[in-house]
Amino acid sequence: MSTLPNLRIDGARLWSELMETAAIGATQKGGLCRLTLTDLDAQVRAWFKARAEALGCTVTVDSMGAMFARRGGRADIPPIAMGSHLDTQPTGGKFDGVLGVLGALEALRTLVEAGYETFAPIEVVNWTNEEGARFQPSMVSSGVFAGAFDHDWASGRSDAAGITFAQALEAIGYRGEERCGVHPLSAFFELHIEQGPRLEAEDKTIGIVTGIQGIRWFETTIRGQEAHTGTTPMGLRKNALLGAARLVEEVEAIARSHAPSAVGTVGRLEVKPNSPNVIPGEVFFTVDLRHPEAAVLDEMQQAWTAAGYAVTAELGLEVEIAKILDQDPVRFDAECLACVRDAARAAGLPAREIVSGAGHDAGYVSRVAPSAMIFVPCRDGISHNEAEYASPEHCAAGAQVLLQSVLSYDRLLQERHQGG
Amino acid sequence: MSTLPNLRIDGARLWSELMETAAIGATQKGGLCRLTLTDLDAQVRAWFKARAEALGCTVTVDSMGAMFARRGGRADIPPIAMGSHLDTQPTGGKFDGVLGVLGALEALRTLVEAGYETFAPIEVVNWTNEEGARFQPSMVSSGVFAGAFDHDWASGRSDAAGITFAQALEAIGYRGEERCGVHPLSAFFELHIEQGPRLEAEDKTIGIVTGIQGIRWFETTIRGQEAHTGTTPMGLRKNALLGAARLVEEVEAIARSHAPSAVGTVGRLEVKPNSPNVIPGEVFFTVDLRHPEAAVLDEMQQAWTAAGYAVTAELGLEVEIAKILDQDPVRFDAECLACVRDAARAAGLPAREIVSGAGHDAGYVSRVAPSAMIFVPCRDGISHNEAEYASPEHCAAGAQVLLQSVLSYDRLLQERHQGG
Repeated sequence: MSTLPNLRIDGARLWSELMETAAIGATQKGGLCRLTLTDLDAQVRAWFKARAEALGCTVTVDSMGAMFARRGGRADIPPIAMGSHLDTQPTGGKFDGVLGVLGALEALRTLVEAGYETFAPIEVVNWTNEEGARFQPSMVSSGVFAGAFDHDWASGRSDAAGITFAQALEAIGYRGEERCGVHPLSAFFELHIEQGPRLEAEDKTIGIVTGIQGIRWFETTIRGQEAHTGTTPMGLRKNALLGAARLVEEVEAIARSHAPSAVGTVGRLEVKPNSPNVIPGEVFFTVDLRHPEAAVLDEMQQAWTAAGYAVTAELGLEVEIAKILDQDPVRFDAECLACVRDAARAAGLPAREIVSGAGHDAGYVSRVAPSAMIFVPCRDGISHNEAEYASPEHCAAGAQVLLQSVLSYDRLLQERHQGG
Repeated sequence: MSTLPNLRIDGARLWSELMETAAIGATQKGGLCRLTLTDLDAQVRAWFKARAEALGCTVTVDSMGAMFARRGGRADIPPIAMGSHLDTQPTGGKFDGVLGVLGALEALRTLVEAGYETFAPIEVVNWTNEEGARFQPSMVSSGVFAGAFDHDWASGRSDAAGITFAQALEAIGYRGEERCGVHPLSAFFELHIEQGPRLEAEDKTIGIVTGIQGIRWFETTIRGQEAHTGTTPMGLRKNALLGAARLVEEVEAIARSHAPSAVGTVGRLEVKPNSPNVIPGEVFFTVDLRHPEAAVLDEMQQAWTAAGYAVTAELGLEVEIAKILDQDPVRFDAECLACVRDAARAAGLPAREIVSGAGHDAGYVSRVAPSAMIFVPCRDGISHNEAEYASPEHCAAGAQVLLQSVLSYDRLLQERHQGG
């Protein structure tokens, strides 16, 4: 096996592009609000497309809006892809997802400028609606891509204003012709900020992400009876919000009773009619349960649904619970991980293995292509927050490891195809 | 004292107008969504103005948007007013408030058609934003009218979209020139549905409303820290929604511990950023506490604020609690009540005295003018609900008692002025 070329990404250029795109949806507190399939999303998509085309890439869009910027290789085989997402939370940061797309773009640009021809084609991917803030569930386009979600079901999901995913896609002009899922990949690498405190605590620059904890999301609707707050005696009430409040506490208790690895959260909650002098007749909320082991997640799910039915029955309320996301714990591909490990070592960067607490597009993609992830630290482990921050040095280190991982995997493919 | 004229309101005509205006903001489930100062509110205001002017009335608007349709009397004294409100809850019914304005219009029309000239001028009033659904607090224009709220404070209150009351008033063209509060009244009578089950249970047609229980509203904002649901250990969270959930339960417990008359409710609650995979960083909610005795309300308020500070401190959260409405228990005017009692007796209608659980504009107006209220039953006591219903017979009976109460009070004023 010959030595890999000693290509270096340009960290200053990457940082400059991170700051440039951070103007699209910038918030007053220094974060980003760039919800999926909004006009701001369309702006950053157009920026990405223009940059990729300037590098000679062909950009295609699939029927879930995922974008693939392709540079050809010497062989006619499926591409090695790298990427993440450009959408953000309503009060999100400048790095979550964005680093993975812009870092990949910088890696590709480094190849172009060096005139280095890969064996496999190389693609940079921008997955649609990773965040799941506007449309639930999250990671919906990589999920459809991997066959985890039905295409039509996902297309029909509505935001809080009743606009469907398909309508929103159409409105910004990103409903592509290629059917989501038919696009074969030789491998997928995703660079991301850790969104947790461990790399920083141990002064490691690179996280070799061996897997992702399991995630389950539930949509819950509780129905009671709207009535006047002043005239309806306490004993005659069917208060949907009282039921929801008890279940917010139950979710907290279930996570704590599966310490230390379990987490459980109600992140979104909507009250109807939401008027101070009307007893709430209906409450909708989401439940997010996570654990690295599927068997423990099963226990947590059982405890949650049992609580959901018991609490509402006791209060004379009706309840509907629907599981809308079920991502089993993920183990990433051993060969891809070896490429990441080698790349970190070659770059002389301190690294450790890590399991992701957050879900990522690579988790779904790993069902249909060998995949792995690379983490870099973020300050105080803070993410999904406008204060989210990763240093220019760490961003550059991540992009460098990403580039070398891809080149390493490309060499592997070449050797395999040539019987080397 | 001479006998009052035997004038009869037209129940069929009143019902027809109730159904006609119910088309403005009609919901699929048969209710009304006619939030204050919306285009729909403007439509029903224009309808009311046109009908009143067709009866020869002069319609003026004050600086809080309250409308006064005036028919002159023989004497140059402040008018006897009757009325209520034309705005509704987001999922409101066809009778709450609307009956009080349209019943008053029908009473006035009966006077006009009979050519009966009153001693005092007569006015029909439509108070702005009684419901408090879009802008809090409720009963805001009668509150400013009575000096309970500061004019500029009330004008600056914002809806969920950040639009101020003054801007909304301007937008629909109902910011009147007369300064709210300078309009003197000789008396005020308000007809309303009971919004509770007692009249129906005892088969009484008329409630002689002797007073209103005390009401206090609080706006509460809890602040924690937004963070990723997947990567933030349970022990490191500052979950604003967990604090809010415990306080929803505390409000319930406080009301139940002051049984049987106390009620307490969280009716409106908003989560930020309201995304399934973000730990809620901020929750805003309203608290509505009511009791017929001010001393008990004091105890409830103390228990609520103590719980608010204790629960949030325990969870490492910050809290702000602001009292935005404080309506002491109301005792209506003895002479006005005597007029209502006599009117019910003269009409041969079964009646009982009753204390209102709901707040009403008449509660504030009673601070600046002798006032009373008339209740009619509503089906199953249901209100603030699209299923709210009052029968044509009960609506007509209420309007008849309203008319006779006003005539009776008019006679009283005449006798007093003439030293009779």
